[in-house]
Amino acid sequence: MCRWAAYRGKPLYLEELVSSPAHSLIEQSHCATRAKTATNGDGFGIAWYGERPEPGRYRDILPAWSDCNLKSLARQIRSPLFLAHVRAATGGGTRRDNCHPFVHGVWSFMHNGQIADFEHLRRPMESMLDNDLYAARTGATDSELLFLLAKQFGLERDPLAAMAETIGLVERLAAQLGRKVLVRFTAAFSDGRTLYAVRYATDLHAPTLYAAPMDRTGGYCLVSEPLNDDTDAWVEIPDGSAVVLGEDGIDVQLFAPGSHAPAKGNLAVAG
Amino acid sequence: MCRWAAYRGKPLYLEELVSSPAHSLIEQSHCATRAKTATNGDGFGIAWYGERPEPGRYRDILPAWSDCNLKSLARQIRSPLFLAHVRAATGGGTRRDNCHPFVHGVWSFMHNGQIADFEHLRRPMESMLDNDLYAARTGATDSELLFLLAKQFGLERDPLAAMAETIGLVERLAAQLGRKVLVRFTAAFSDGRTLYAVRYATDLHAPTLYAAPMDRTGGYCLVSEPLNDDTDAWVEIPDGSAVVLGEDGIDVQLFAPGSHAPAKGNLAVAG
Amino acid sequence: MCRWAAYRGKPLYLEELVSSPAHSLIEQSHCATRAKTATNGDGFGIAWYGERPEPGRYRDILPAWSDCNLKSLARQIRSPLFLAHVRAATGGGTRRDNCHPFVHGVWSFMHNGQIADFEHLRRPMESMLDNDLYAARTGATDSELLFLLAKQFGLERDPLAAMAETIGLVERLAAQLGRKVLVRFTAAFSDGRTLYAVRYATDLHAPTLYAAPMDRTGGYCLVSEPLNDDTDAWVEIPDGSAVVLGEDGIDVQLFAPGSHAPAKGNLAVAG
Amino acid sequence: MCRWAAYRGKPLYLEELVSSPAHSLIEQSHCATRAKTATNGDGFGIAWYGERPEPGRYRDILPAWSDCNLKSLARQIRSPLFLAHVRAATGGGTRRDNCHPFVHGVWSFMHNGQIADFEHLRRPMESMLDNDLYAARTGATDSELLFLLAKQFGLERDPLAAMAETIGLVERLAAQLGRKVLVRFTAAFSDGRTLYAVRYATDLHAPTLYAAPMDRTGGYCLVSEPLNDDTDAWVEIPDGSAVVLGEDGIDVQLFAPGSHAPAKGNLAVAG
Repeated sequence: MCRWAAYRGKPLYLEELVSSPAHSLIEQSHCATRAKTATNGDGFGIAWYGERPEPGRYRDILPAWSDCNLKSLARQIRSPLFLAHVRAATGGGTRRDNCHPFVHGVWSFMHNGQIADFEHLRRPMESMLDNDLYAARTGATDSELLFLLAKQFGLERDPLAAMAETIGLVERLAAQLGRKVLVRFTAAFSDGRTLYAVRYATDLHAPTLYAAPMDRTGGYCLVSEPLNDDTDAWVEIPDGSAVVLGEDGIDVQLFAPGSHAPAKGNLAVAG
Repeated sequence: MCRWAAYRGKPLYLEELVSSPAHSLIEQSHCATRAKTATNGDGFGIAWYGERPEPGRYRDILPAWSDCNLKSLARQIRSPLFLAHVRAATGGGTRRDNCHPFVHGVWSFMHNGQIADFEHLRRPMESMLDNDLYAARTGATDSELLFLLAKQFGLERDPLAAMAETIGLVERLAAQLGRKVLVRFTAAFSDGRTLYAVRYATDLHAPTLYAAPMDRTGGYCLVSEPLNDDTDAWVEIPDGSAVVLGEDGIDVQLFAPGSHAPAKGNLAVAG
Repeated sequence: MCRWAAYRGKPLYLEELVSSPAHSLIEQSHCATRAKTATNGDGFGIAWYGERPEPGRYRDILPAWSDCNLKSLARQIRSPLFLAHVRAATGGGTRRDNCHPFVHGVWSFMHNGQIADFEHLRRPMESMLDNDLYAARTGATDSELLFLLAKQFGLERDPLAAMAETIGLVERLAAQLGRKVLVRFTAAFSDGRTLYAVRYATDLHAPTLYAAPMDRTGGYCLVSEPLNDDTDAWVEIPDGSAVVLGEDGIDVQLFAPGSHAPAKGNLAVAG
Repeated sequence: MCRWAAYRGKPLYLEELVSSPAHSLIEQSHCATRAKTATNGDGFGIAWYGERPEPGRYRDILPAWSDCNLKSLARQIRSPLFLAHVRAATGGGTRRDNCHPFVHGVWSFMHNGQIADFEHLRRPMESMLDNDLYAARTGATDSELLFLLAKQFGLERDPLAAMAETIGLVERLAAQLGRKVLVRFTAAFSDGRTLYAVRYATDLHAPTLYAAPMDRTGGYCLVSEPLNDDTDAWVEIPDGSAVVLGEDGIDVQLFAPGSHAPAKGNLAVAG
C-alpha cells in the first residue's frame, strides 16, 4: 500500500503536506496507521505545476524519510497544484522509473492499489499501447501502465471516461484470460488545471481516500490517509467515486468502469 | 534499533542468515517483532572473511529488502565468519559511510544501540583518536567512533578489554561533561579468526542478543533477534556479557566497562 | 562505447582485471584511449561463477571509479570465469536494470556496440520473445534484448548459432521496416563452463576485441581494449569472428549473421 | 577540476546555464575542453534562492548528465540568484555530503581547486571550528571545510575579508607544519542578496573564472569555463581577484590572503 497526497488551491509550500503535519507523508512513510503494510520505504516522488504547462518532478528510491533533497525541495517549492507519493512496492523493482508520480506531457498520475495477476495481464495490456506510448513506458509497474492506457483511451479528451475505460479493459481482459478479476484503484491525476481522483475496487475494498478543505488557501487536499487527527476536517470519499477539483471547487461523482470496448484504442492496436 | 546477525563455523552461504529463514535479517528489516522502531530501511551491510586476512564488504543505503545485489551476493558468497547488519538510523545521515559493518584493517565491527547526548560527546571522543584513526573516520555515527576508539585502546592486543575501556571512557566523559550517562551497546566484532559479541547497558536495557548452534556446521550464530520460531534453539545472552566464538567453541564471560583511564590512549592524544 | 573484460582459467581475483593493471577497466572507465566517447561513467557490473551453476552479480549506477563496494568485491572474490563491464550509455537510462552483465539462469551476457534506429526496432524485437522471456526483460537497452532473443533462438543448444540468428534477425527486421541496417556488436557471454565472444559489424567498424593468455593461470583474458601496454601480449580478434574459450583452450571461428528465419523462435511467437 | 556556474539578475530558469547552451554545465561534465581532468562524473548540485531567505538545494552523486531529476528541476525552477556545480573528486568520497554547493543558514558556497597536503592540514583546520560549525560538518572535503572556516572568521560580517583570512590561515598552517604551501581556489558564494566569487592561487595557476552579462536579464553570469563559443562575451577574471555582483552591478577587486591571525577565531578555539 502506497500513500499519497494531492493539492489544488492557492500556492502552497509542498512541505505543508509532505513533511510538516503530524501525519505528513514522510511521517506516514515511516509508520502508517491505517495501512496493511508496515512500511513505505520503496521510494517517493513529487510532481508540481509552476510556470510551465508541464509539471516538474523529483523522484528517488531512498525512503522518503531519509532524503535531504526532498526536505529542501518541499520547503522551497510553492505550487497551486501538486502530487506527492511514497511507495511500498507490490511489483516492479525499486528504481526511479517505478516511482510515482508518472508524467507524460502535461499530465501527472499517481496510484495506490493493485491488479491481481498483473504478471499475466501485463503483456496484453502493453500490446494495447500506440507505439509512442509503448516507447514512453520506462518502468515495469501496473500503475504506469494504467496511466499510459488512460492516455491511449482519451485522457486529454475526457479524463474520467478514459480512466473508466482503462479499468473496464483490465477487468474484461482478466475475465477473458481466465484470471482473477480484482482491481483496487485509488489514484490522483492532473493536467495542471484540474485535479482528479478516483476511488474504486471490484471487491469494495478500495484503498481509502479523504478530502479536506485547506482553510488558509480556499483549496482542497486529497489524501490516501488523513494527515492529522482533526477527524472532523476529513471527509471519506466512498468507494466507486470520482473527485474533480477545479475552478468551481470540489465535485464528487459516481465512478464505474467503462463497459464497452474503447474503439479508438483497439483500432490503434489493430493497425 | 538495528538488527544484525553474525556467524562463525564451517563455510556457510550468507543467504542462510541474510535472506533464507522465516525471520531472516531481510525479513526483519521489513517488520521486526521485538524491536522498538518499526522499520530498518536505512541501509545495510555485510562483511565476510575469505581467502585474505581482511574482510570483503558490501554496503548500501537502500532498504535491504529491495537490493538485488545483496540477494545475489548472499546467495553466491560462502564464508566461515561473517557479519550482516540492517540499519534503522538513530543518528548520522543515510549514506554508505554510516552503514555497518565498519572495517579497519582485518577488523570488522557492527552495533545496535545508542549513546545518549552523543552530539555533545562526539567532538571530545573524536579528539581522543590518533591522527591515523582520525583520518580513517569517514562517517558520522557513534558506532564507527566506538569502533575506532576501541582500536585506539588496544583492540588488537585485548579485544574485550579495549571495548570495555571504550565504553568506560564514554561513561566517564558523559559524567564529566554533566550529560546523561546512558550507553546501550550490543555489538559484534572480529579479526577474521575469533568472533566477539558484547551485550551491555548502563540502565539494564541493552538490546537483546541471542546465540544458537548451527547443527549442520558445528558453528554458532549470534543475532540481535532469533531468526526463526524454534525458541528452544536460541539462548538469550544476559546483559553485561561478552561472547567469544573461537576454535574452542563458545565462551560467555562477564563484561563491565573499564574503570581506569586508558593510559596509552591518553598519551597518544597528548602527543 | 562501453568497455569490458572477461576471463576463463584458474581462479583469479577479479581485481586483477578490474582494478589492478595500468589499464584496468576502472582506469579505462575514467579515460579511455582507443574509444570514441570520453567517459564510461554510466554504471558498471560484474558477473562471476563460483560454487553454484548460476553466476553471482553486482551492478550499480555510479561510475566504477567511485564505488567502494566494487573495489572490495573485486579484491575479495576469486573466480575461474567472470565478466566485467563499464558502461557509457547509448540508450536506456542510467539505472541498475540497464547495467551489464545481464543474467538469465546460468547465462551471463555483456555487450559493447549499438543497433541503428533501435527505437524503431525495439517493439517488433520484443514481440518475438516468449512470455517468459518477455517478463524477464527488466531494462530498456538493446543489449538486454539481444541477449533475451538469443535465449529465444537456442542459446543453450548452440550458443554461436543462436547469436548469429539474433543478429541476422535484427538486420532483416531493419531492412523490412525500411530502417538503416547497422549493427555493431562486440559481446561476451557464458554458461559458466565455456566463455564465448563475438566481434561483428555490418559496416566493418565493429568495436575492438583483444585476447591475451594469462601466464600465471594458463587461462585467457578477452577485452574490448588491452589492459596494459605490453602490445605483444594482446592479439586483436578480427571483425567477423567468434572466440570460444573452453576446456581445450582458445578457438577462433568465423562469425556471420544467420541467414534464415529462426524457425523455432517464430513458432514460439506464433503460439 | 570541477566546473561551476553562478547567476545573479532577473529570475532565470536554471536550465539556461545548467543544460541548455552548447557548453552548458551538463555538457561540460561530459567532456571539458579547458580542464585538466577528463571527466566530472562525481556528482553535482544546485542551490537557488527563492521566496525564503535560505536557499533550496538539490545534490546527487550520479553524473549530472544522467540525472533526470536535475533536468526536470532545472527546467522548472526560476531564480534570481543560483549556484550550480559538477564535481570531479580530488578528495572525499563520492557521496551527497561531499557535493557542492554547501549550504549553512542563508549562505551557499561552491569551489573549484585544491589544497596541497590537505590530509595533513585537515585535522588542525577542523580544530579551529566552533562546536556548532564542527557539528555542521557532514562531509570530508577541503571545500566544505574552507566554507565553514570562512563562517568562523566572519563571513556574515565581511565576506571577502573572511575568505581572505581563511586562505591566509591555510597558507600559514601549511608553512608551520612544514607542508607544501599550495592553495588553488576559484569559488563562488552568496547570502541570497549578493553573489561573490574569488580567483586566487599561491602559484598563479588558479582555475579559470569568467564573467559575462546576460543581455536579456541585465544580470551577470560567472563560470569556471565559458558556456558558449561567443568569445567576445566572456571576460576572464584575473588571478588574485574577487568579483562582487550586487544591486549596483558588477565590481572586481584585488584579492589577497589575510596576513594576520583571525583573532576572534583563535579565541573561539582557545575557549
